[in-house]
This record gives sequence, C-alpha cells and structure tokens, in this order.
Amino acid sequence: MNGRHFADRISDAVRRLRSPVVVGLDPRWNQLPASFHGSGDSLAAQARAFEDFSKAVIDVVSPLVPAVKPQAAVFEELGPAGMAALAAVIDHAQSRGLLVILDGKRNDIGSTAEAYARGYLGRESAWHADALTVSPYLGDDSLTPFVDVAAARDAGVFVLVKTSNPGSGMLQDMLSGRQPMYRTVAMHVERLAEQHVGVCGYGCVGAVVGATYPHQVTELRAAMPHTWFLVPGYGSQGGTAADVAAAFDSRGLGAIVNNSRGIIFAHARPEDAERFGAARWQEAVEAATRAMIDDLRTAVPALGK
Amino acid sequence: MNGRHFADRISDAVRRLRSPVVVGLDPRWNQLPASFHGSGDSLAAQARAFEDFSKAVIDVVSPLVPAVKPQAAVFEELGPAGMAALAAVIDHAQSRGLLVILDGKRNDIGSTAEAYARGYLGRESAWHADALTVSPYLGDDSLTPFVDVAAARDAGVFVLVKTSNPGSGMLQDMLSGRQPMYRTVAMHVERLAEQHVGVCGYGCVGAVVGATYPHQVTELRAAMPHTWFLVPGYGSQGGTAADVAAAFDSRGLGAIVNNSRGIIFAHARPEDAERFGAARWQEAVEAATRAMIDDLRTAVPALGK
Repeated sequence: MNGRHFADRISDAVRRLRSPVVVGLDPRWNQLPASFHGSGDSLAAQARAFEDFSKAVIDVVSPLVPAVKPQAAVFEELGPAGMAALAAVIDHAQSRGLLVILDGKRNDIGSTAEAYARGYLGRESAWHADALTVSPYLGDDSLTPFVDVAAARDAGVFVLVKTSNPGSGMLQDMLSGRQPMYRTVAMHVERLAEQHVGVCGYGCVGAVVGATYPHQVTELRAAMPHTWFLVPGYGSQGGTAADVAAAFDSRGLGAIVNNSRGIIFAHARPEDAERFGAARWQEAVEAATRAMIDDLRTAVPALGK
Repeated sequence: MNGRHFADRISDAVRRLRSPVVVGLDPRWNQLPASFHGSGDSLAAQARAFEDFSKAVIDVVSPLVPAVKPQAAVFEELGPAGMAALAAVIDHAQSRGLLVILDGKRNDIGSTAEAYARGYLGRESAWHADALTVSPYLGDDSLTPFVDVAAARDAGVFVLVKTSNPGSGMLQDMLSGRQPMYRTVAMHVERLAEQHVGVCGYGCVGAVVGATYPHQVTELRAAMPHTWFLVPGYGSQGGTAADVAAAFDSRGLGAIVNNSRGIIFAHARPEDAERFGAARWQEAVEAATRAMIDDLRTAVPALGK
C-alpha cells in the first residue's frame, strides 16, 4: 500500500504543479545525444546509455511534471540488460517524486494476468510501477486481475480504449449495432473505475484515449466521468492542445497528456537544434516541457486557477 | 536468418516427431516440486528455481515435442532476475533443438511495435525467440512491424484471434453486421499469412484459436488455409483432443496444441500424485506428454501416417 489512492496521487500532483504533462521515456539509440554513444553499441552499452539518458531526463523534468511513462518495448528490445536498466529508471523516477506509468500494454487470462499485475503494480511489486497500460482484447475477465491488484495496492491501470494510431479504426471503430467497439470497452472501463473511486472522484482504472481523435476524446469524457484519461498523440503524432482540452473536467483534472519524442529528443528538432545543439540537450528538454505545459495551460484555463 | 521458413521448421518437427504438442513453461512458485524451494523465496531465488525447473522440463520433453512456449508473465513477475532466467530458458530450449514460442501477447504502434519485434523475433534478436504471440487490439498497422521482422528473420508471429477464456466473447464475439470481430481479425491474419508462405503451404503469421471453442476452430480452419494455429485450452481449461482435431489439415499439419499445467505440474494431479510423487516429477512430465501425444494421434489419424 502506498496509503493513498492512485487517482488522488495524480490529482494532487497535477494541481500542485499546474501541469498534466507525462514525459514518455522512449530512448532510441540513434537519436541519443552523441555523448551517450561513447561506450560502443553492445546491448549492455545501449542499456547503460538508455538508463543514463532516462535518468538525466528525469532530473530535468521532475520539478515540472507529475509522471513519466517508460516505454517497456525499447528497454525489452535490449534483452535482460535492458530490463535491468528499466528497473533502475523506475527507481530513479520515484526517488525524484514522480509517478511511474509503465507502458507495457500487457494482457493475458486468469492467473497469467494476475502474474503481470502482481509483478508490475504497486511499490511492493518487483517492478513497483505506479500504473501499467493494459490491452482489453481478451475481454472482461482478463482485466479483472489488474483492477483487483491495482485497487488493493493503490496503483493504477490504463486500459487501451481508443488509441492514437491510424490503424486503431480497424477494430476499435467496428460498429456493433450503432456502437463502436471502443465505446463498449469504454463503458466497461467506466464501470470498473466507478468501483474504486478516490477523493478526487476518479477511479484507479483509467483509459488510453488518443489526442489524434478529438471527437472521441469529447464523447468519452462525457461518457466516462470516473475515468482518468492518459492521452497519447500530442505533438509528433499531430494532436494539439485544443484537441486534448476536452479530456479535462471543469477543475482541470481527469487527464494527463503524454509527450515522448517531442520532449526527450527536443534537441534534434529543427527549431531547437540551432538554439541548443546536442551538448545542451537537457536545456532543450526543459524548454520543450515548459512550452507544452504553457500550451496546455492556455487551452485548459482551469489548470491555471 | 535461420535459413528456413518458420512454418517449415514447425512442420518438419511435427512430422518427424508425429507430435503437435507445445509444452507451456508457466512455472508457479507454490506448485514447484519441493526440491526447488531449498534456497528461500527471494525474487532471485524464485527466478533461479524457475530457470532450473524449466530447464529440467525441457530436458524431458525435448525428444518428444517440437516446441515450448515460455509464459513471459511469470518470469516478468520476478523482475529483472526473472527476465535473466527467461533468457537462459530460451537458450536452453534451443540448445536442445526446440522451437521457442514466447507467449508475451505484445503489441504497440509504429516504431514501438518494431522495437518489440526486433527485440524478440529471430535468433539474431536479444531474446532470440522463434515466435511471439501478439495482440491485435491496436489494428492492422500495429501488426505490420511484427510481420515484416518475422518474414525477414524466418521467425513467426501468432496473433490472438479467438482466445480460450470465458471472457473472450466480450469483444471477440461482438457482431458487426453478421460477422464477429474475431472473424475480421482472422481474415486479416490470413491475408498476412498468405504473403509469406513456406514450402509446407503455411505462412509465418499464425493465429491463436482456443480449444475451448471447437465451433470456431472448425470455422477458422476452413477460412484460414495458410494460417498455422497455436491452440491453447487443451486439458486444464477443458478442451479435448476431439475439440482440437478440427484445427489440423488432412496431412496432420496446421496446428500445434499447448498444454502447460497439465504437463509441467503433472506430478500434482490427483491421478498422478500416487503414481509418481514429487520426487519423480520428471517421470510424471514425461508420462503426461506421451499421453497427450497419444491422445492427439488418436484424434488426428493423419499424424500417425
């Protein structure tokens, strides 16, 4: 137990910082500043570079944002050394006071889903993430173990509802009667969220809803009053602050907005490369984070109150 | 490159052994024979026990079956030590001539899906699995990176189509027009499979189709002539040899059938506990594997030719 409901911990941090930004930790070998390439490109060297880079990003953003979202895939790609680096990154983020939402999109059935939930969720688990992203394809009984463990440990789960990629339409928009499948998932998630609500009014079960589909953001915010949204797709994928504004409630709560490449590789953006250069990459990270926060504060005035 | 198409490697092994059995490696701490509990229950001790137990299972079954299916979740539950154990288990299985299908049900979008694919698929990857299970919720563009890497590296992908759990109906059976969603996924998977067909007639993209839904097994076998099936749900979950027989083509090819607990924990089954006891647990594994092979040979006569 962390002693405090997951949604209340996010809510407190968003209010305190006036910032709903999540920094996605998706290191990519070829995009790291050159200073991280000094030890060669073995899997172990890459894993160490990912760890050092991610920790340095965390040191910059921890005063500014409530949470980071490590992308499991890019650490897993490096084998066991990458997984050890991931664990160290999670530790470091929490030592800096950040919530950690691990983006693993895990799912399975029965006791296997329980193994994922027990392994990832809560500070007493092996990975001690504060929250995990989960895929719903296997159905309601595959989500229950995650919800139960999250509720018992004051951790969180974000279920994929409407994802930000162009192909999300293939299954998620399939109509059954007049209702698209993402809506069926959404209503199930809302029922789960309602069952474990914190003081802030939101549950420990949240939803992933892409900024690239602003109509769905609006529709689902209204349909899911107890569900905190994790919103990907801002920035590099095309989502704007105006697109994500509808994810927030009238208090400026209910959503956190992720940005990965647009922040961690800000030094490589054409408009920033000239201003900062690779040697000052951390300044570029800070500037990009502050710019996103300002952008959201403008689009969501309730954040500024 | 392993030099030979993934489906041909499975097909060759199934024919040579007259055995379409996949042994699921799902170690559970509380169900391990007592001899594996000697070093305490720290995460490191559990990981070591999972590794030793899995290797010992592999040593028993490698002459009898074409493949093993390690369950990523149970190793991940133990943190980085568990992931190191998983890597060692994969190595050991391949050194014994087995194909390794990692059951991770991974999925993500774009370059993140590529990271999973590059990290897990093919002997040149960090985890060097021969195949990986993949979830389709994010849509067609989330599957393409897995297919491309699998095709380039003679590896395989098994996409979740109709899973064996009771809750699979929630989304997978949703009707759009007259067609359930699993059928939409199935037809997409079949189109992907057709694009990379081996000498045996099957593609490098397969499908997970649960033995617990025998009508769907029959329907999908007819609809997916180029798609190899990975069939879970035999045994402990209630699927019988008669239920899975329809997954095979007239040559006795086109399907492999998983059994996890029913084999690896055979020593604890009431009917076997008396016969073997925990000290002779490997004999129970062998007897259960042979019994399942005999069961399938009876139900699928083409296996015996």
